[in-house]
Parts: sequence; C-alpha cells; structure tokens
Amino acid sequence: MQVILGVSNRHVHLTQDDYKTLFGDEPMNKVRDLRQPGQFASDKFVTIQNGDRQINHVRVLGPLRNYTQIEISKTDAYTLKVDPPIRTSGDLEGSSPITLIGPKGELHLDKGCILANRHIHISPEEVKKYHLEGVKKVKVKVDGPKGGILYNVHLKILEPSLLEMHIDTDEGNAFGVKTGDVLDIIEIERDE
Amino acid sequence: MQVILGVSNRHVHLTQDDYKTLFGDEPMNKVRDLRQPGQFASDKFVTIQNGDRQINHVRVLGPLRNYTQIEISKTDAYTLKVDPPIRTSGDLEGSSPITLIGPKGELHLDKGCILANRHIHISPEEVKKYHLEGVKKVKVKVDGPKGGILYNVHLKILEPSLLEMHIDTDEGNAFGVKTGDVLDIIEIERDE
Repeated sequence: MQVILGVSNRHVHLTQDDYKTLFGDEPMNKVRDLRQPGQFASDKFVTIQNGDRQINHVRVLGPLRNYTQIEISKTDAYTLKVDPPIRTSGDLEGSSPITLIGPKGELHLDKGCILANRHIHISPEEVKKYHLEGVKKVKVKVDGPKGGILYNVHLKILEPSLLEMHIDTDEGNAFGVKTGDVLDIIEIERDE
Repeated sequence: MQVILGVSNRHVHLTQDDYKTLFGDEPMNKVRDLRQPGQFASDKFVTIQNGDRQINHVRVLGPLRNYTQIEISKTDAYTLKVDPPIRTSGDLEGSSPITLIGPKGELHLDKGCILANRHIHISPEEVKKYHLEGVKKVKVKVDGPKGGILYNVHLKILEPSLLEMHIDTDEGNAFGVKTGDVLDIIEIERDE
C-alpha cells in the first residue's frame, strides 16, 4: 500500500475569537487549497514568540477551527526555546504556552504549541478497502540515501479525507523526502 | 551491537590558510574535547553566507585540516538557499559554493558545503571485534514516539577513533534523539 506525502511547514490554526484578536475585521482569504478537503493556506501570517525568541511569517491555515493550535518542528522549538509535546491535532491539554502576534493584536496562550505526530489522513472507506480496521499506527518506508523507516505513523480516520501522510520539515529533511513523494506502508503496528 | 550517538550541529573545518584569512593571527583555542580523539570545539565562530542569506555564529572545529568544509543540515540549506550534496567528510568535488565571514576577512569558496552522510566512527580493532570486515553501511534502530530505522549509516574506519554514530540536527530532531543516546545497530547492509 502506498501513500502520498505532505511535508508540513510550521503553521497555525485559529479559533474565530483568536483570529479577531490578531487580525480584527480583515477577512481571511484562500491562497491555495491543501490536499485535505476544505483545508486551505490563507493569506494571513503571524509571529510566534517565546520570551525574546521569535519566528516571523508563520502561515495561518483555514478554515477557522474550534481550537487554536501552533504546529512547529523540533528545530523551531530550539529556536524558540520551547519544549512542546508530540501530539495529535486538537489534543492540547498540557501543550506549550506561546505568544502569537498579528497586525491587530497579541495572544498570550497558556497552551497550544505542539510537535505534530506523524500521521496519515484516511477515510473510513479507505480503511475498509485496505483492511486497516482497528489499526492505530503503521510503519512507512523511505528509499534513497537518507532512507529508512518511520515508526508510529498514526492513522487519522476522518470523513471527508484524501489519503495523505503528514510529517514535519525535520522529518522531511532527515529522510530526504518532499511533498508529493509516494511512500510505502510496509507494516501495521498492532501494539499501542 | 550498540553505538553511542553524537548529534552534530552545523560546523566548519578549516585549512591553516583559510583560518588565517578569517582570523588573522588570533590563536584557535580549545573550548572542549569532542568524543573523537584529538577533535575539539574551538572558541572561533564564522558567519556562513550565500547571496543575501546568512547563518551567524557557526562554530569552527579543531584541529585545522587539509581541506575546508562546511557541514550544515537540510533545514540550514533552505535558510541559505543552497542545495548541498550528501557527502562523506573530505569528498568535496562538486559540493556547494559558499562564503565564510570571519572577524579578519572573507572567503568565497567555490566548493566545500555539504550535508554530512550518517556515519559511525569505528576503529579497525572494533571492526574486527564486531565482525564487520568489508561492511560499508549498517541500519540503526531508534525507539520512542519518533522512532524508526536509519538506513545508509556509513562505517568510517579510522585509527584512532572511538565508536560513535554521527547524525545531523534534522535527523536528531526527526527521530527524537540526542547526543549521548545509545542506539542499536540492527542490520548490516551488504549491498552498495
């Protein structure tokens, strides 16, 4: 079984309220669609800040969600001197405090910053088609000079979704892969 | 068979002539020993530059060598807008041009910037002890939430050397490992 890859650069998801704090009444516009249905890269950017450390020009993804979440790489975490946990989207309890700065205001969040776990977006139909019922995680193989195997690639079953594996830029760089590459799922992890 | 890990941050090796261009008559002092015998972190730093992109405060490692080499991560390569090849130390033909800036001068190099390949420092005695004669590469396993397997870990047989695996910061971050961690060599790669 094969899966197309998407390498996620650092990005931010916002609630309606938090968007308003950062951008006021400016509308959020779509710049391009992402592969996952309905998801898009917006024309809005924020600065992520922790103490005297910051990363500028971090893109806000749309649409607005019911949680605000900041997804960075471990390399970014060193830059910002934060130590975020490895999490699934939306699982933010105990995640890292962080500050967001927009053109109209600032947000001092007491949680929300994570390293996203490796995951595969897959629909319930595809789960059936590929006989993955009950499977939580798989192993994925990468060829090439920086090849290897990624363990703990979580299945994220959502309707609607298109089959796609997401890793962060550290993982993309470490394995020498990029968005659009096709990888092989080589093994199912039955244990937790 | 187990191996202790060293995660290499971006760094620079210099020839005597290139050192003199960058630092003049300032002596290079040892800040701390590295694990490999004779190798050390010096008190000298340079700026790496490509066009309008630069990374400051990149450490020079000692002692001086008979080649000048700049080892960066793929993340750094994006920052600098360079596209260095994956290479073994000293194999610099066709590697990326780059500029080094020191307190006393600049060097415009027509080659020298690489992504270091994953490698294990090992002495001829250890090669015998672990029955690795003729082996060029191994596979190494990492446990944990960012676990997996690294392929194409090259054996670098040198006398003197202490057993140690070197990866770059992208790889360290992608696998959630750090200097001092102990990893398992799980397989020998007999093919080239």
